[in-house]
Amino acid sequence: MYKQQLLECHNRIKPYIHRTPVLTSRLLNEITGSHVFFKCENFQRMGAYKMRGATNAILMLSERERSKGVVTHSSGNFAQALSLAAQSLNVKAYIVMPSNAPKVKKVAVSQYGGHIVECAPTLEARTVAANKIAGETGATFIHPSNDIDVIIGQGTAAMELLEDYPELDYIFAPVGGGGLIAGTSLAAHYFGNKCKVVGGEPYEADDAYRSFHSGKIESNLTTNTIADGLKTVLGDNTFPIIKKHVHDIIRVTEDEIVIAMRLIWERLKIIVEPSSAVALAALISEKKNYQDMQIGIIISGGNVDLNQLPF
Amino acid sequence: MYKQQLLECHNRIKPYIHRTPVLTSRLLNEITGSHVFFKCENFQRMGAYKMRGATNAILMLSERERSKGVVTHSSGNFAQALSLAAQSLNVKAYIVMPSNAPKVKKVAVSQYGGHIVECAPTLEARTVAANKIAGETGATFIHPSNDIDVIIGQGTAAMELLEDYPELDYIFAPVGGGGLIAGTSLAAHYFGNKCKVVGGEPYEADDAYRSFHSGKIESNLTTNTIADGLKTVLGDNTFPIIKKHVHDIIRVTEDEIVIAMRLIWERLKIIVEPSSAVALAALISEKKNYQDMQIGIIISGGNVDLNQLPF
Repeated sequence: MYKQQLLECHNRIKPYIHRTPVLTSRLLNEITGSHVFFKCENFQRMGAYKMRGATNAILMLSERERSKGVVTHSSGNFAQALSLAAQSLNVKAYIVMPSNAPKVKKVAVSQYGGHIVECAPTLEARTVAANKIAGETGATFIHPSNDIDVIIGQGTAAMELLEDYPELDYIFAPVGGGGLIAGTSLAAHYFGNKCKVVGGEPYEADDAYRSFHSGKIESNLTTNTIADGLKTVLGDNTFPIIKKHVHDIIRVTEDEIVIAMRLIWERLKIIVEPSSAVALAALISEKKNYQDMQIGIIISGGNVDLNQLPF
Repeated sequence: MYKQQLLECHNRIKPYIHRTPVLTSRLLNEITGSHVFFKCENFQRMGAYKMRGATNAILMLSERERSKGVVTHSSGNFAQALSLAAQSLNVKAYIVMPSNAPKVKKVAVSQYGGHIVECAPTLEARTVAANKIAGETGATFIHPSNDIDVIIGQGTAAMELLEDYPELDYIFAPVGGGGLIAGTSLAAHYFGNKCKVVGGEPYEADDAYRSFHSGKIESNLTTNTIADGLKTVLGDNTFPIIKKHVHDIIRVTEDEIVIAMRLIWERLKIIVEPSSAVALAALISEKKNYQDMQIGIIISGGNVDLNQLPF
């Protein structure tokens, strides 16, 4: 079922997304001891893989639903992705953002045509605000990660990577809300040749690692991480897929994230966000287990504030 | 003559260089009012177009010459390029560097196998040191820019760009020693369809602009620019080609360079050095003259010190 959904999704969203390039680096192969293929979703439209899931979710709506718009709550890449996907499809997007969200994020959402609705900076307030908009306008709520159409959409990045490199032994991806890793694990299961999927997660926001080991959804004890895209938690759609199809989740320290980020900037000459570096950091931290293997890494995005760099 | 040289050079160096990608950005097209195609030599081996000219210069030597090695003076990308090109071809490279060169540059040269010879930080001292090495070892001196084999090699970036986009109206490139712009102007002349070449140069190191207008080689009055690759001056091989084939040279301020660099980082999601941003800064500064045109821009390199960023 998921196999067919992934194939149909890829065809559906193709006209609205970029097929992103895959980069390699001799030095990063030397450092890891493996053959690493970086799928560069930082070059995706609006700068992150989230464009895939957002586009798919809107395209799955009926004409009648689309005419009433979509609504989400996010202060990160999904806010921008849903705004741009909606704009491309001539659909109205309402974005609930906490009142303390950085101005640069609000500007980006506005530039992509999203209608910002501010709320108090609590989990409860944003749910209330999103429900209120849905009730008043008839807009369809689309969750940034815990939505099966979003999950399937995010999986298309790994599908493309496996089309280019069918013999990958592993694909590493960062874990936040779990939409990317869930979609990636489905793509690897259906389109890989025994390809396993490994998640990278900061120690400072390790809900997925603990959920993976306890067997039930755990919340974050801290979210004090530079990887600001990974502070969210798993949901009832992402977790069962992760439990079933993800091979392992590796935690990394903040220092390891910054070192990996710097390696990617200096060696691949590309701008990636801290969250993107978590997957490489995970590989480096347990590299002894992956010697001489073919490893895909999903570079999730490149939206950084150049005034807030860790180096 | 140059046409044949360019074609032969491209075939000669192909096995040792990357064919670099060309990127575009809807937003940068909107900002400039033109259609801009960025030839990304920051993705070239060792991170800059200089790899092309260095490789060609060594490949043009006889077996006997190669056995005695090569020597250059440079504290920038050419030092690394000649080191890596020589290493790839199993040739010894002597690199004369001023004693006050940044440690990070010396480390990079050593990593690529170059043999560093330090000299006092003056133009005279480095020439003396290079001549001494050539005399003692029989190594062939290769100038970083004012060498026809180097110039031809640098022109292959524009050749590839014109293969991909044959109808470019203009190609913009930064001007330092003039090797890149001279090679680019030859490539545009022989392989473009009426394609003209425009140089970008900092006001703070505007020897080429003043030479272009006075008709004779002028020296720099200041070199107080963030574009550290552009502090060098034209030579007797680069200048005649520039005089004959370059359409215009546009000067830009330091602020304009940093703004253009930031646009490239934020919008193309790639790491480029300040020198690379000078060409885009030049286009933006006189964009009214280039509306709706097809513009190529040579992104010259991506070797930056992340501890010394201007933002």
